[in-house]
Amino acid sequence: MAVTRWVEGLTSAGVSAGIKPSGDLDLGLLVARRPLTWAGAFTRNAAAAECVNWNRAALGRRVKALVVNSGNANACTGTAGRNTVEATAAAAAEQVGCGVDEVLVCSTGPIGVPLDSRLIEKALPAATSSLASSVDDFSRSILTTDTFPKVSTASSGGASVTGVAKGAAMIAPNMATMLAFLGTDADVPADSLQGAVNWAVDRSFNRLCLDGCESTNDSVVVLTTGAGPKLDQEELRALLLEVCSQLALKMARDAEGATKLVRIRIEGASTEAHAADLGRAVAHSDLWRAAAHGADPNWGRVLAAMGTVDRRLDVERTSVSIGDEVLFVKGEPSGLLAAAAAAMSGDEFTVSVVLDQGDAAAEILTADLSEEYVTLNAEVTT
Amino acid sequence: MAVTRWVEGLTSAGVSAGIKPSGDLDLGLLVARRPLTWAGAFTRNAAAAECVNWNRAALGRRVKALVVNSGNANACTGTAGRNTVEATAAAAAEQVGCGVDEVLVCSTGPIGVPLDSRLIEKALPAATSSLASSVDDFSRSILTTDTFPKVSTASSGGASVTGVAKGAAMIAPNMATMLAFLGTDADVPADSLQGAVNWAVDRSFNRLCLDGCESTNDSVVVLTTGAGPKLDQEELRALLLEVCSQLALKMARDAEGATKLVRIRIEGASTEAHAADLGRAVAHSDLWRAAAHGADPNWGRVLAAMGTVDRRLDVERTSVSIGDEVLFVKGEPSGLLAAAAAAMSGDEFTVSVVLDQGDAAAEILTADLSEEYVTLNAEVTT
Repeated sequence: MAVTRWVEGLTSAGVSAGIKPSGDLDLGLLVARRPLTWAGAFTRNAAAAECVNWNRAALGRRVKALVVNSGNANACTGTAGRNTVEATAAAAAEQVGCGVDEVLVCSTGPIGVPLDSRLIEKALPAATSSLASSVDDFSRSILTTDTFPKVSTASSGGASVTGVAKGAAMIAPNMATMLAFLGTDADVPADSLQGAVNWAVDRSFNRLCLDGCESTNDSVVVLTTGAGPKLDQEELRALLLEVCSQLALKMARDAEGATKLVRIRIEGASTEAHAADLGRAVAHSDLWRAAAHGADPNWGRVLAAMGTVDRRLDVERTSVSIGDEVLFVKGEPSGLLAAAAAAMSGDEFTVSVVLDQGDAAAEILTADLSEEYVTLNAEVTT
Repeated sequence: MAVTRWVEGLTSAGVSAGIKPSGDLDLGLLVARRPLTWAGAFTRNAAAAECVNWNRAALGRRVKALVVNSGNANACTGTAGRNTVEATAAAAAEQVGCGVDEVLVCSTGPIGVPLDSRLIEKALPAATSSLASSVDDFSRSILTTDTFPKVSTASSGGASVTGVAKGAAMIAPNMATMLAFLGTDADVPADSLQGAVNWAVDRSFNRLCLDGCESTNDSVVVLTTGAGPKLDQEELRALLLEVCSQLALKMARDAEGATKLVRIRIEGASTEAHAADLGRAVAHSDLWRAAAHGADPNWGRVLAAMGTVDRRLDVERTSVSIGDEVLFVKGEPSGLLAAAAAAMSGDEFTVSVVLDQGDAAAEILTADLSEEYVTLNAEVTT
């Protein structure tokens, strides 16, 4: 298998710092040759981890390094948690030779568990000495219950981007959290980069709805070396969206306990945002996701889920299909349930809703709700 | 066991109409001696079943009979579904001797499955001939996956109320739906009754959040004979709330697949509505409900759930307890997880959140999320 590399000027490492009891890689370090322009998108959770606040405060400054640990979210950990973030940034700054305020810090894992910064401080020298252009160890060091590393690349107009993510689980707080780190060489100013990141995240990671739980630690960080060609806003958006969409798809395929990728396509909506809201409502329905698990073509649960977020939804103008089978046409049941069940029996299927409101559309990715999801999340983790 | 009876002037029956393949009771009939003042609260789902629309249209009119079937929600069933509602009302009107528009119709069961009105028409004579003052057969005829009938009574100031409900499941669309039927003799005008029903439902059934899915068929119907004493609005509210709260508690204890009743108490909120919203957010978290199932005192999931609905939640002013163990005090972790886990190990526990915003409080009832819930809802029902 070909090695995936960061763009020229970025290196990374992944080591074991002893945060995960298993001894697996749990500390990642991403370092730039010189301080870089960056942009970020973060969880809107009011109980956001202290590292999220730390990174938000660095928006607008250039950064040279990013430290990320898995196995502990360092969220809701109070004063001790704040001290750990500062100690981590200080230790990394010393290792890579930059200011403390040029270091970003991310964490993922259980909430509310104290994170001893000495574990990170002790492991950082080994990480620094193993920095390399390959994403390999770094991509594995950020995983929690993910079953495979998530890496994607794209290039356009001579500019390249490499992205690494973890999701695994529920795109949710505990033992989960969505993290994505992208490096590009596109020559763009900071505000253009931030605008393009917001745009691409809204159409990729924000179209992923696994269990509806929003993490305290969700973060997307995009660094640019600026050594490549200039891109206009449209080119930049497309480039970032390509990698973000690929990463989001990999997260959906690796959803915790899931056996199926479910695409929820809403068409004929008045706006794209409304289409996405309706799709998220379906993705948020435990009943529908349990039906998906059992390959039960229970299209009524799709309508019921949409009817709770759009109180004016007109079912007489709404149609629902599973796979190619149309099961509900403008207020009337239709089609063959057996054909729909067959479409649901594989490891991926699409449920399509056609409204009669306009021309906008959106697709939300989700996964089935399995007994294993419950088992995994009922385990004592604290 | 003592027989529970309706107030004087109301009779009911429950028979098997062959709607449930099991042959269990599936058709209930509630009949008043003469047309009565009534009030109702219904699902706000835009994909509401046709019978819900039928009943809403009857608000303000007196009614003499109510027909309810289990085993089929008759929702999203189009023209055929509308015809079934009308045929059911017409058949009942003929049996009990009243106008078609003096009959209410309720249904519960799978969505989108055609319901043959002839099954109901054929069974109504047997139901009519077995009308009695006991709630027994009626209370069993409305069940779906409920494991026991839900009946409660209360009296105050000489007035009485008897209530019968079904929930079982998820307080959700398919194979579920929350239905409650109350009969009282309180002498109150229709608008007072409607106001008191809205008030009591908001503080009882609307404080119940099992899987967050809102049914197409949820209905609460309260009939009054008016033969009892006059009650003022405060007395009436208290009387209805007592029975509605008891029924809601029984639903929570009988939640589909659940092994634990979980009380989520939010105190120190700016308003009661905000407290209830935060409690519902916790109840809606699959992650928290899975942790509850495993008796994992994962208080971080409680904070994370609240932080997604209140973007201004100040965790530095928030405390969280499980049982009597305080695990998070104004931004800092605290207490013994083992003590909290012990509190969660029984069949009921309370998680308490204290905000520092005001004096309002609310309690939301939920249940744990179990593997069995997924199994039950992954079964092919359509």
